[in-house]
Amino acid sequence: MEFKHKDIIALRDLSKAEIELLISTAENMREVNSRDIKKVPTLRGKTIINLFYESSTRTRTSFEIAGKRLSADTVNIAPSNSSATKGETLADTALNLLAMKPDIIVMRHAVSGSHYFLSKKVGCSIINAGDGAHEHPSQGLLDMLTIKDKFGRLDGLKVAMVGDITHSRVARSDIQGLTKMGSSIYLAGPPTMMPPGVERLGNVTVCGTMKEAIQDADVVIMLRIQQERQGKTLMPNTREYSRYFGLNPENLKLAKPDAMVMHPGPINRGVEMSSYVVDGNQSHILKQVENGVAVRMSMLYHVCGGGSVE
Amino acid sequence: MEFKHKDIIALRDLSKAEIELLISTAENMREVNSRDIKKVPTLRGKTIINLFYESSTRTRTSFEIAGKRLSADTVNIAPSNSSATKGETLADTALNLLAMKPDIIVMRHAVSGSHYFLSKKVGCSIINAGDGAHEHPSQGLLDMLTIKDKFGRLDGLKVAMVGDITHSRVARSDIQGLTKMGSSIYLAGPPTMMPPGVERLGNVTVCGTMKEAIQDADVVIMLRIQQERQGKTLMPNTREYSRYFGLNPENLKLAKPDAMVMHPGPINRGVEMSSYVVDGNQSHILKQVENGVAVRMSMLYHVCGGGSVE
Amino acid sequence: MEFKHKDIIALRDLSKAEIELLISTAENMREVNSRDIKKVPTLRGKTIINLFYESSTRTRTSFEIAGKRLSADTVNIAPSNSSATKGETLADTALNLLAMKPDIIVMRHAVSGSHYFLSKKVGCSIINAGDGAHEHPSQGLLDMLTIKDKFGRLDGLKVAMVGDITHSRVARSDIQGLTKMGSSIYLAGPPTMMPPGVERLGNVTVCGTMKEAIQDADVVIMLRIQQERQGKTLMPNTREYSRYFGLNPENLKLAKPDAMVMHPGPINRGVEMSSYVVDGNQSHILKQVENGVAVRMSMLYHVCGGGSVE
Repeated sequence: MEFKHKDIIALRDLSKAEIELLISTAENMREVNSRDIKKVPTLRGKTIINLFYESSTRTRTSFEIAGKRLSADTVNIAPSNSSATKGETLADTALNLLAMKPDIIVMRHAVSGSHYFLSKKVGCSIINAGDGAHEHPSQGLLDMLTIKDKFGRLDGLKVAMVGDITHSRVARSDIQGLTKMGSSIYLAGPPTMMPPGVERLGNVTVCGTMKEAIQDADVVIMLRIQQERQGKTLMPNTREYSRYFGLNPENLKLAKPDAMVMHPGPINRGVEMSSYVVDGNQSHILKQVENGVAVRMSMLYHVCGGGSVE
Repeated sequence: MEFKHKDIIALRDLSKAEIELLISTAENMREVNSRDIKKVPTLRGKTIINLFYESSTRTRTSFEIAGKRLSADTVNIAPSNSSATKGETLADTALNLLAMKPDIIVMRHAVSGSHYFLSKKVGCSIINAGDGAHEHPSQGLLDMLTIKDKFGRLDGLKVAMVGDITHSRVARSDIQGLTKMGSSIYLAGPPTMMPPGVERLGNVTVCGTMKEAIQDADVVIMLRIQQERQGKTLMPNTREYSRYFGLNPENLKLAKPDAMVMHPGPINRGVEMSSYVVDGNQSHILKQVENGVAVRMSMLYHVCGGGSVE
Repeated sequence: MEFKHKDIIALRDLSKAEIELLISTAENMREVNSRDIKKVPTLRGKTIINLFYESSTRTRTSFEIAGKRLSADTVNIAPSNSSATKGETLADTALNLLAMKPDIIVMRHAVSGSHYFLSKKVGCSIINAGDGAHEHPSQGLLDMLTIKDKFGRLDGLKVAMVGDITHSRVARSDIQGLTKMGSSIYLAGPPTMMPPGVERLGNVTVCGTMKEAIQDADVVIMLRIQQERQGKTLMPNTREYSRYFGLNPENLKLAKPDAMVMHPGPINRGVEMSSYVVDGNQSHILKQVENGVAVRMSMLYHVCGGGSVE
């Protein structure tokens, strides 16, 4: 099967088969990452621009390492926030970068939809590394790969997701991906952080309490309290938040005995999760990060047209 | 012909033949940029330091991509402005960097003349990526390449240049290069932005109005209003500026029917030029950016002694 | 002989033979740096993360160039200071980076001991690029290489070290390394800048005056006044400091006629040393910087298990 998209902007745009292709290629890429010489010549002579309007050490580093392991040339650009206020400016920046003939622009931008806007303007591939509260497809894919590692499949699972659903692009990508693969999502969080109408998506249930969501869950995904994104909503007291929506060894017992715990990071220890759970043997958080490099190698590879991996 | 200079600091220092050599090599480099594998081993094992005392996403990125496509190792350094206040400090920084045995230092610095100062101190090649209001030779060369692409020659053309001539290193490099090649320059701009005595240069005419400058021009180069450089001069109201010195579809009709429009970027849309002109079919602005990578590859190549390009 | 350590955190942890191995490999690496093609494939496919919690253009650049000349992939990370306040956060950051499977993390961090903390958490190699006022082993090694270049040996030398001993990680690494090799250290500095009990180390003498320290010295190492580290001690007036503890042509005559002068940089000219001495023919300061790249290549090479260098 061939991957036909020029860009990867949202899991919403991909079919079940395309998601499966990206995940199975990531499984192959993981083998490269475990070698002594962690490098293949697949993207030699390709130029990747990492254009991060919002800073993100983790995601930028993961994409940069992914690109370098494929032998691409990577260039990092962190425009000051001031130059990113207008869509018109974004277009001019992008058109200028495009004129330098990159093969891929990996972009993080605070404005949802900016990647689609860009994609229409430029001929090179656009990969979304996070856009506002819209989607974060590489996180969605690495979460699915991590779940598949544990259960060997992505259908028929009960996945609980707890926290700030409204502001979470991770939640959006996870919901898009996992429901497409045939799993069921159970959401819990403060009412101000629950997007109205989310239950109208197929296979998504909004729960009244956290207990209800994690009861018999196979997977528990805890979301980060995005303190930087919450100017407009009522920010709960973190202690109170933790009491109602924090994961601890007690309430984790409600999930299935072999349930896996995940978090997109960075973690506010003691708020979303107790350290006991973060570092416990049900936690797959570092496995997520490890899978992140492999998934991003897969994404870079497929938007460049695929081909043989040595 | 061989390029004999260790450094490229100003087009003023280069002969007509040397400028032609840099431009014709850039034409070859452009071919590399259009390949599927955009990389040649020409500068493998060479170390290029991009030392930018003033931030410049566009120029730094262009030089970085140029270096990587030639297989050089590139290292970016952005000293804080505070450490760049004294010439002595610049010398110590430079001598320290030199001790790490780079082959080329590409430097942008706010002080005109700092590159000559450095060149005397160090044995490696210095390329000027912009120094104060002095010169910006890579911009001058890419402008000439873009003009040559259109007209097939660089002599006998009428080139209008409009805006803040005094503070523009682009204007200085363009004037040096284009008059050397045999074209004529017609300048227009507010009196406070016109350097006294500029008309004493051969083939340069200072016009009383913008209309006079662009009348029958083959090329119209609009300059950026450098709001960050104008503490000391009378800053015009942008609306008023735009009325007297902005390029729009009306006054562009004064130029020759096939006249080309250029701008070094970033553009203040609606100030120097209307968006209609920026995005119109006489605009070669993105072609300039594209040529920028090729021209910088040519510069890096020649200061390293030339040799074969695969 | 084989280098058996996973990490290089402090010269205190290395034997005399191990230090000699690192220095002699650096001598070989220096040969690579003098080639026209300054690159060997030794660390191809290895990932090096330069994690600098404190900014340091010089040391970061030196490690980055060292890694690239060994053909490793290098990734720079400069976390904001705000994210580095707690050891727990450091652990989470490090574990996340480790999950991306780097081979080496080169770290600078303000907290002494943070590298040991990290080393226990992660399986990859840790190289200390400076931790608080503790150690700076690459500086210690490059100082020893520079001294060996001059005298052909590292034992039986009188080494004067003048300045702020308390806050200097360079002093600590130099003392550890040079006394291990059989040289004697003579310290001078303001009483507030002299660590109590330092004379209990073997072969270390605390002198009452600078003259006493440099009398008949083979090597004079001047330390930087770390104005940024001295919030808690009594900062001397720089003029007065210079009079009592600055090196100038007069007091340099007290040392042996062929004594060498060194400084870890950046230099406060006119404070620790007069410019006449900095730029004089007894100064080996730029040789130190040059040796820095070679020493760092040696360190990167040995923590990766050594092997053949082409």
